[in-house]
Amino acid sequence: MVRVAIIGASGYTGAESIRIILRHSEAKLVYLTALPQECGAVRDVFGQFKGRCDLQIEPLDFDKLSGLADVALCCLPHKVSMGFVPKFLAAGLKVIDFSADYRLKDISVYEKFYEVKHTDAVNLGRAVYGLPELFREDIKGKDLIANPGCYPTGALLAIAPLLKEGLIETDSIIVNAVTGVSGAGRNPSSKFHFPNMNENLFAYGVGSHRHMPEMEQIAGEIADSNVQILFQPHAGPFDRGILSTVYCQPKGKISNEKLLKLYNDFYAGEHFVQIRSDAPTVKDVAGTNYCHIFATRAKGRIIIFSAIDNLVKGASGQAVQNMNIVFGLEETLGLK
Amino acid sequence: MVRVAIIGASGYTGAESIRIILRHSEAKLVYLTALPQECGAVRDVFGQFKGRCDLQIEPLDFDKLSGLADVALCCLPHKVSMGFVPKFLAAGLKVIDFSADYRLKDISVYEKFYEVKHTDAVNLGRAVYGLPELFREDIKGKDLIANPGCYPTGALLAIAPLLKEGLIETDSIIVNAVTGVSGAGRNPSSKFHFPNMNENLFAYGVGSHRHMPEMEQIAGEIADSNVQILFQPHAGPFDRGILSTVYCQPKGKISNEKLLKLYNDFYAGEHFVQIRSDAPTVKDVAGTNYCHIFATRAKGRIIIFSAIDNLVKGASGQAVQNMNIVFGLEETLGLK
Amino acid sequence: MVRVAIIGASGYTGAESIRIILRHSEAKLVYLTALPQECGAVRDVFGQFKGRCDLQIEPLDFDKLSGLADVALCCLPHKVSMGFVPKFLAAGLKVIDFSADYRLKDISVYEKFYEVKHTDAVNLGRAVYGLPELFREDIKGKDLIANPGCYPTGALLAIAPLLKEGLIETDSIIVNAVTGVSGAGRNPSSKFHFPNMNENLFAYGVGSHRHMPEMEQIAGEIADSNVQILFQPHAGPFDRGILSTVYCQPKGKISNEKLLKLYNDFYAGEHFVQIRSDAPTVKDVAGTNYCHIFATRAKGRIIIFSAIDNLVKGASGQAVQNMNIVFGLEETLGLK
Amino acid sequence: MVRVAIIGASGYTGAESIRIILRHSEAKLVYLTALPQECGAVRDVFGQFKGRCDLQIEPLDFDKLSGLADVALCCLPHKVSMGFVPKFLAAGLKVIDFSADYRLKDISVYEKFYEVKHTDAVNLGRAVYGLPELFREDIKGKDLIANPGCYPTGALLAIAPLLKEGLIETDSIIVNAVTGVSGAGRNPSSKFHFPNMNENLFAYGVGSHRHMPEMEQIAGEIADSNVQILFQPHAGPFDRGILSTVYCQPKGKISNEKLLKLYNDFYAGEHFVQIRSDAPTVKDVAGTNYCHIFATRAKGRIIIFSAIDNLVKGASGQAVQNMNIVFGLEETLGLK
Repeated sequence: MVRVAIIGASGYTGAESIRIILRHSEAKLVYLTALPQECGAVRDVFGQFKGRCDLQIEPLDFDKLSGLADVALCCLPHKVSMGFVPKFLAAGLKVIDFSADYRLKDISVYEKFYEVKHTDAVNLGRAVYGLPELFREDIKGKDLIANPGCYPTGALLAIAPLLKEGLIETDSIIVNAVTGVSGAGRNPSSKFHFPNMNENLFAYGVGSHRHMPEMEQIAGEIADSNVQILFQPHAGPFDRGILSTVYCQPKGKISNEKLLKLYNDFYAGEHFVQIRSDAPTVKDVAGTNYCHIFATRAKGRIIIFSAIDNLVKGASGQAVQNMNIVFGLEETLGLK
Repeated sequence: MVRVAIIGASGYTGAESIRIILRHSEAKLVYLTALPQECGAVRDVFGQFKGRCDLQIEPLDFDKLSGLADVALCCLPHKVSMGFVPKFLAAGLKVIDFSADYRLKDISVYEKFYEVKHTDAVNLGRAVYGLPELFREDIKGKDLIANPGCYPTGALLAIAPLLKEGLIETDSIIVNAVTGVSGAGRNPSSKFHFPNMNENLFAYGVGSHRHMPEMEQIAGEIADSNVQILFQPHAGPFDRGILSTVYCQPKGKISNEKLLKLYNDFYAGEHFVQIRSDAPTVKDVAGTNYCHIFATRAKGRIIIFSAIDNLVKGASGQAVQNMNIVFGLEETLGLK
Repeated sequence: MVRVAIIGASGYTGAESIRIILRHSEAKLVYLTALPQECGAVRDVFGQFKGRCDLQIEPLDFDKLSGLADVALCCLPHKVSMGFVPKFLAAGLKVIDFSADYRLKDISVYEKFYEVKHTDAVNLGRAVYGLPELFREDIKGKDLIANPGCYPTGALLAIAPLLKEGLIETDSIIVNAVTGVSGAGRNPSSKFHFPNMNENLFAYGVGSHRHMPEMEQIAGEIADSNVQILFQPHAGPFDRGILSTVYCQPKGKISNEKLLKLYNDFYAGEHFVQIRSDAPTVKDVAGTNYCHIFATRAKGRIIIFSAIDNLVKGASGQAVQNMNIVFGLEETLGLK
Repeated sequence: MVRVAIIGASGYTGAESIRIILRHSEAKLVYLTALPQECGAVRDVFGQFKGRCDLQIEPLDFDKLSGLADVALCCLPHKVSMGFVPKFLAAGLKVIDFSADYRLKDISVYEKFYEVKHTDAVNLGRAVYGLPELFREDIKGKDLIANPGCYPTGALLAIAPLLKEGLIETDSIIVNAVTGVSGAGRNPSSKFHFPNMNENLFAYGVGSHRHMPEMEQIAGEIADSNVQILFQPHAGPFDRGILSTVYCQPKGKISNEKLLKLYNDFYAGEHFVQIRSDAPTVKDVAGTNYCHIFATRAKGRIIIFSAIDNLVKGASGQAVQNMNIVFGLEETLGLK
């Protein structure tokens, strides 16, 4: 039984991680931490767990953590995480880190987009990017997994087969995505105040979203060449889900039949990636760890649609999938 | 042309008042004020007014106000309003006050429910409760109108005919109401953060909502006797509207035909109250100044349903209706 | 391993039953049926099951059913169900019936509210009302369980402690409830067309909803006396959940402390009923089999709030809970 | 006073047209028609008009129409409209046609995308495309205006300045758009059933939406050259609005300052097009006839965002704007 600590358990990804581990037959929650002002009984912090979880969310105590847990699901924010992860590793824990701190291999890119000095280059060097469908072998048994961003998860699963096969131009990929509001986190703000966000839809992070370099780095690894991605996120009036609509320029002619075969072959045996023959919907994947993908030609381009739940496949579910791989468990445990 | 100032223009009732006055053929906006940190061009504070209103929202300057305006729509919060209204009146303005400060005639009740000393007993004594369908004659030409609360507007219009005719027991009225989230105001909070409020519904203010004594006072005036109301509000996942479901105990037998006639007769000639022969919906009145009502017998009781838009008939629309009456204008101007 | 057939699998309660059984460690889906025009691969009928369920939904074949299954979750509509259930029983299956056909013990009441002759009085006589928290002992090992209606589940759990202890008047109970739209079923209609239902809220079934006699019958059994309930349902703009706000007249004085103790004692040891000290929210129970309850005094009355998910505790979850009890399994299997 | 008939008044664009004309100071409703099964008092067909409109919606009677009205707002569906419009014109009415029947100048394109023979080539030849900000002079005094599609309105206003100035490549424009559900019309369907559409988002019309050739034709006129547009629509969980995110390839270098100036200059004096310096939101334009636009460079491309209300600027509002121009009225009447 893997003993799981959740660091930063008071946010949405913390709650989602709790929900998943509660159903996991080979893992159990042993320790939940948050900032002092956000601590309390799980059932009080998240009413949904009343009667389902008797744990407390407590201020982090390193000694307690190292004695109790085998793995830390680290749900801390960007910039904060790299201050803690080295200590978790030093204490012998495996770490699945939800932040961006261990995703961008090029420190100068990290420092440009996150506007802070990176303080843990050593661990950054050995962290593995935790997108199992693409990097499963690298993840097995590792100490530190950089859990992918929600948008990169959806976008990369959408374009990986085409990049891998070299079938598209790598300088003209456009990723247009719409996320549900849980992606903005649990802190109230004017933009996401219900009467402002309800019945609304808008773009944000125009031309400069932090997930753009993350996508480009991993896409580049897959393609084994420089990849340029124009990524434009939007927020829509729903709780969960990301729909990515990806526009690519094919290098040559490719039929829809070949596209379908390419995707089916590439993801053959992948439980959590499902290739559809029609456009996926956000609702079909909400609350699940699945990614639904449809690829088709349109007016000389290829459009790929991918749908995930930003809190599950885009965060906590993928983290548990990574945890399962790291510990040699059945990959789908807790996630079906 | 009535010259209108809006005091506290940066909130939802301020925006709604702006929207209505912009369409009013006999009134015009001359001065908009807010707290310094909420000031700016109307088009920036509320994107919806880009190209529609060139005014600035400015910090309140009494001299400017008294020189520019004939009437103040005072959208200040409870407790704050009574600090300003005497000065507006002293400057010769008519005042339509949106707060509760001039609604409760019994100062001890006000002080109990609002937990603050009332500082303007003089004006409280001469303020008129601005529910035009019930108190139109009292409103004409007056200086200070206490614009009713949103819940009391819906509930009082629902029960007034029965109370006036003495047809129901006055000690057992239950008002169960659900409001849209704009009723909670423009300040972000955890409860109304989109991912928390969306797909949600809950009760609040259990047994102690401040609109309960307001309903009881006015209901008592209508019935000319003590009236007890159990009022239970809820918040639901929509922007605008209040649906009140009111349960009453009839004193004797009354048929549905008689009920329908009673309501049609009572509100004959009232433009903004529409009697239906089926249950009203929030969406039919959203964005309008109308109140839709349906009354029927059910298992020995009478149930009355009323639907209004909390920001229009429950606030800014009713304020303009009152303004029209005060200034002797056609009552529906700006509100059709 | 209990072998489960779902009859009428193409509706929302069918989908929800599939979802739950897929996670059940001691039960498995063996046979899914629907009307011919609604058949097909589960993954096509419900996109959410792509990759998660390889079964087909097929037209019902009695021979196949009796050979494959131990239990039928019968999700057929009212009036239709009683034409099939006798055959399922004759074939030796246990039946959990979702319709109202086996809930109302008084055939004349059934025939009045459902406007059809009851054709299976024999089995009606031996069916057990499947509300486990109130009738667990009766359910054990039985053949035919009448799975309660969604509204009665929420309302009865709310008032059972007070009725059992004789603490409230039984002639003046008011149940005001709001349901999410999934309660209206999967067939499109004008009322529930998105642009009509979104941002809307309205009452329906005024004074005559079919769940009223069901509530009264079971409430009468609990109180061991005649109980009169005025039940008024509403539909609100969300997918899942029922919030019931129940107004009762206490017979004598009762403190909030005593109320809290009464509810905690009554439901001590009940996993799926959680007593709160504040008003429950629909979102806390959405997607779960839990019922959250809060009872409090207000202006001489008692108000009880209860929240359930109409598709889970109000339908498929409760059905699986009943199935678990019937087969002697751990009651919470598949439902945590 | 312009006398307005609405043909096909029982749908959403009919209702929206009624709402707008009711507020129009120089136009009045004189005749409303629909299919017999959709007729009735306006207040019954659309509860929102109770007390606001006493007209009946009646089956179309040509004699009555020609005697009563100066203009027909023809809200009939594609393919149906061209069977009626010639008769309206023959009767001496001006016609604002909401369908696609008079938009596509190339009959073969029309017949390919609408899969029906065009039966009114004569009038097609003289119809004017009613996008006032681009073709105002052509619209003045004309008999037959082809009111633009909702998506083309948003997309064309977004790209017109760049096309006109020849600043972008014309073979690589991508229009990614999300519409609210009212765009799907008033007929219930499974896809737009509330529990299916709520919390959902999906693409449709992949690679083949009928608005694509309409966009290309008009864009080609503006650019005075062939224009290729890849248009991908999506439906999102809100009532009203279209957000178009348009990706273009600039021919040379252009700064954000120049872009802003270009758009401000191009739309100088246009009341209903507002140029923003940040991304527009659907909610800011919902219920209005405004189009909010923001253009910016991003990674070597230009992205233009435009937001409109699909039922107002995308349909009924633009129709009234066209009507105002045709009759020489102030263009903003009824639309502020």
